[in-house]
Amino acid sequence: MKIAIVIFDKFTDVDLWLMWDLLNRVRVPDWSVKILGEKDSHVSATGIPVATHARLEEANGADAVLFVSGQGTRDRIADENWLGKFRLDSEKQLIGSICSGSLILAKLGLLEGKTATTYPTSKAVLESFNVKVIEKPFIAHGKVATAGGCLAQQYLVGWVIENLADAEWKNLILKSIQPVGEGLFFADAQNLTKLYAPLKAKTV
Amino acid sequence: MKIAIVIFDKFTDVDLWLMWDLLNRVRVPDWSVKILGEKDSHVSATGIPVATHARLEEANGADAVLFVSGQGTRDRIADENWLGKFRLDSEKQLIGSICSGSLILAKLGLLEGKTATTYPTSKAVLESFNVKVIEKPFIAHGKVATAGGCLAQQYLVGWVIENLADAEWKNLILKSIQPVGEGLFFADAQNLTKLYAPLKAKTV
Repeated sequence: MKIAIVIFDKFTDVDLWLMWDLLNRVRVPDWSVKILGEKDSHVSATGIPVATHARLEEANGADAVLFVSGQGTRDRIADENWLGKFRLDSEKQLIGSICSGSLILAKLGLLEGKTATTYPTSKAVLESFNVKVIEKPFIAHGKVATAGGCLAQQYLVGWVIENLADAEWKNLILKSIQPVGEGLFFADAQNLTKLYAPLKAKTV
Repeated sequence: MKIAIVIFDKFTDVDLWLMWDLLNRVRVPDWSVKILGEKDSHVSATGIPVATHARLEEANGADAVLFVSGQGTRDRIADENWLGKFRLDSEKQLIGSICSGSLILAKLGLLEGKTATTYPTSKAVLESFNVKVIEKPFIAHGKVATAGGCLAQQYLVGWVIENLADAEWKNLILKSIQPVGEGLFFADAQNLTKLYAPLKAKTV
């Protein structure tokens, strides 16, 4: 399974890394997670440079494509050249966004006439694309999903893992990041070791 | 206020980036957050290289020092040279850890005879340092605190922000990452813009 996370300059740091870390806890054969961008590296909202593993076009052959968020989304939705790199297929690929990444999904025509969610500060812009914006953490229509609020990445990533791996991986991985005593318990220790097994073939 | 986050090779990605992102949302004068390490860059558990802003010794003059987690903590607690760089003062500095970062606090003598929390897979090792390990997400004794489970970074970072900024910043910042409809609401949009105000003087 190939999962692509699309980044760009001025992205929200945690909206990349929470997804990235969770998706990298899956241990099934040929599970690959890559960070894609239009450059060799992109700089986050806090000034952290992040190397990309491949270019945007690789998203078009991925099983799941996830868009991060941040102030940088405003430049992306105005950049027809950037948007034109994508040939996504919502019949075959899981396509999702966190927070203002929904603006990119909308601009790509994936949310037309649908309900969706986003970050509070992006609600008005998303509505301007003829999207009905609902105050929910996660909304999926078939293979297209939007999530709002950084920690709603748990719903988004859970949806991807359940669809491309299974519910057991989803449940274990989401459990593994909960606060101790509030979803994660000392008695889970042995089960958690599954998430840190060495990778057989690292494709990135 | 100077906040230091200490990383090392094989650290858990999200245990750096959630703290980092939240701490960078504070907008008070002279608020500085730096990533410290013993090298120019360290490689995360998933293979991501991260540049450090300064060396370990800078932690000794920080107002708060936070230790990340990951498999790499096992090497750190066996490295007397690395441990010897720290001259922390738990009377003057806030000192905290997420997950297995608690092993470093213990090895530095900061948890002797105290209660603390950690990641489930690190409980036995932490107990071997004469620490009473409790199944809670966050435990503070004066200026020393431990948190267990990645998302318990919210308690740890909230504690730092409340102590070094104020409760208003803490509450707004923790709210800003909640899932939409579950702690964060569209009506919060205007308040959230405070977190994205341009920085006046970036010290990093």
